[in-house]
Amino acid sequence: MAVRLNEPGDISAVAGVELASLSAGIKKNGKDDLVVLVFDESSSCAATFTLNAFCAAPVALAKQHLSSARPRALLINSGNANAGTGDIGMQNALHSCELLAGKLNCSPEQVLPFSTGVIGEQLPMEKMQSGIERIVDDLSEDNWLSAAQGIMTTDTIAKAVTRKIELDGREITISGIAKGSGMICPNMATMLSFVATDADIDIDVLQQCLSGCVDSSFNAITVDGDTSTNDACVLIATAKSGNARIDDINSADAKIFIEALREVCQQLAQAIVRDGEGASKFVTVSVKHANSVDEARDVAYTIAHSPLVKTALFASDPNWGRILAAVGRAGVEKLDITGVHIYLDDVCIVSAGGVAPDYSEERGQSVMNKDEIAITVDLSRGDSSAEIWTTDLSHEYVRINSEYRS
Amino acid sequence: MAVRLNEPGDISAVAGVELASLSAGIKKNGKDDLVVLVFDESSSCAATFTLNAFCAAPVALAKQHLSSARPRALLINSGNANAGTGDIGMQNALHSCELLAGKLNCSPEQVLPFSTGVIGEQLPMEKMQSGIERIVDDLSEDNWLSAAQGIMTTDTIAKAVTRKIELDGREITISGIAKGSGMICPNMATMLSFVATDADIDIDVLQQCLSGCVDSSFNAITVDGDTSTNDACVLIATAKSGNARIDDINSADAKIFIEALREVCQQLAQAIVRDGEGASKFVTVSVKHANSVDEARDVAYTIAHSPLVKTALFASDPNWGRILAAVGRAGVEKLDITGVHIYLDDVCIVSAGGVAPDYSEERGQSVMNKDEIAITVDLSRGDSSAEIWTTDLSHEYVRINSEYRS
Repeated sequence: MAVRLNEPGDISAVAGVELASLSAGIKKNGKDDLVVLVFDESSSCAATFTLNAFCAAPVALAKQHLSSARPRALLINSGNANAGTGDIGMQNALHSCELLAGKLNCSPEQVLPFSTGVIGEQLPMEKMQSGIERIVDDLSEDNWLSAAQGIMTTDTIAKAVTRKIELDGREITISGIAKGSGMICPNMATMLSFVATDADIDIDVLQQCLSGCVDSSFNAITVDGDTSTNDACVLIATAKSGNARIDDINSADAKIFIEALREVCQQLAQAIVRDGEGASKFVTVSVKHANSVDEARDVAYTIAHSPLVKTALFASDPNWGRILAAVGRAGVEKLDITGVHIYLDDVCIVSAGGVAPDYSEERGQSVMNKDEIAITVDLSRGDSSAEIWTTDLSHEYVRINSEYRS
Repeated sequence: MAVRLNEPGDISAVAGVELASLSAGIKKNGKDDLVVLVFDESSSCAATFTLNAFCAAPVALAKQHLSSARPRALLINSGNANAGTGDIGMQNALHSCELLAGKLNCSPEQVLPFSTGVIGEQLPMEKMQSGIERIVDDLSEDNWLSAAQGIMTTDTIAKAVTRKIELDGREITISGIAKGSGMICPNMATMLSFVATDADIDIDVLQQCLSGCVDSSFNAITVDGDTSTNDACVLIATAKSGNARIDDINSADAKIFIEALREVCQQLAQAIVRDGEGASKFVTVSVKHANSVDEARDVAYTIAHSPLVKTALFASDPNWGRILAAVGRAGVEKLDITGVHIYLDDVCIVSAGGVAPDYSEERGQSVMNKDEIAITVDLSRGDSSAEIWTTDLSHEYVRINSEYRS
């Protein structure tokens, strides 16, 4: 049911990065569920993680490892989130890193672990061990697509994006993969996403590039408002392209790189929404002229999370009263409703506290019939704005999430 | 699909209150959609209203009227919310009050208007006028049940409750009706609810009684997190019973009255949840040992609004990881997850940041199979608590809300 999302085309290799994917038997359906991404020791690595207080064991351990060593590899399993698993979960995550480190001749601290899948079950360590034994033999620069497939859970389509730019006279590649379809409302992080480039970038600048791009991509999507325990986004720069090292976030080269990185992150983030559980619509919610970015985001998320707005979108029903009601309950202090304008695409539906004078059900219906819809709210009270992306709420969402474990 | 909710039994008349209900043709299905409640001029009247900024025309007008005159009548229509209707909506609400006032020989300011139904369509004034002409002939003390039916929209069962208490040696009756099934997340008010008593109570004390009871009843329920534009709760005291006037909120009589009123309000509020759109479960979410009531309520509502928790409840799936993830994203500052305990009924599912040692899937399943479930979260960090009531998220909810206007 993905909304205008195709299987990814060719994904360019990134010099200095090798990947492998296989089935370790963690998923019941026999599909790939173990992925390794190994990168050259010249590489810098930046990351963002979920703010969920019940963050998963691999998230906690990846943060520890990132602060104590220079990463060489990512170890990712799907089918099991290793979250809510207590001390045993932490031991299993650490032991998994040790197993891979043994095969790669690096220290366990140089391995960052990631897990996604069902919460509350312990990792099947025999399967992990057997999978890790075998997987290093499959490492290759050309395995981006199979890695994108190996990290999927309820995703129906793999998510992978490539961009090429020129920096300092050198061709630079940025390639990334992501997974995610439900429990999507990232907070300062994302579902799992792994992006690599062969550019040479200072580690602090790299972290700034990533944080900035994540805010306007993975942190701007929601499927169901449920922030995962396992969200993480990693950006690796292998420095293999030979460009002059980027060590100033405000430099011209940094700006070119950030623009390309933001495109990659936004396309991956939007792919997660397009493949949102049960999605039949891809919806852009924009809020303009708010008093602050937080205010604009509050209004946008209130609309995007409203079950009534989402079911109206599913029904292609221009029941704009539900959007108006969501704006009204979004907690905007002293909102003057006579200044509020609401649009479906370019059709004005609400102005001056009521239905717009030239609105007709027919015009609203013509927008609602589309599978890509923009809802725009103009609050007419400030200079801040926000844009987020979301889906509708369909029977299929309920079916997927009431049958997920069975 | 209502969860353990029966048709109400006999509702006691309240001396000094007459009601009538009929079909004015506002609803397409021909059911009753116009209700009038008239009360003796000795009566006091208290009310709470929605905090939605886009509050409906009748809400805005009822507030004006309440502050400028002593009410004599409530005029309620279902099938049309008269919300998002701008100036014309206000004129229609006022004109409706004028029509009823003409029939009752009172001033328009003494009529409080209420509407519930589809947002964004103008009231059909010819039907309103014709209905108001006829309805006053049907006024009777014994019409509580038909009034409860007349205010229904997507409700499947009428909601009405009676309590009798003794005050000052006199028998006192409290009778109330309510409606609501979707767009339920009242904020300082409720869906429509109308409660009357023959007790003699000072108007300021009456308002305090109502506000206090609403906080722990109508303000403690949620079906879908969508706060309506039309929520209102009205409490009328006719002073017909002859008890010594209650003029101190801390008096023994006030406490007896408040306890009975809270029971009436909680039973009506829980009836709304039991009849929640598509509900197959009635769920009590309790949060204990929080640092503040707000913190406790934030955690409780985060669980109650999580689509993933709600679909797991619908599936009777003890997928407790979704509850844990909701607690983790509820924004509790510096939450020590090792102190968090989560229970399904009396089965401890989470302790010390992971699954409880003696938890088994079988024990979780035995609770989840019930149609009434308590989720209890102990945060182990303070002395505050909160309790709210909610439903699951079913196919039926999506069906109802994607077909509501068609």
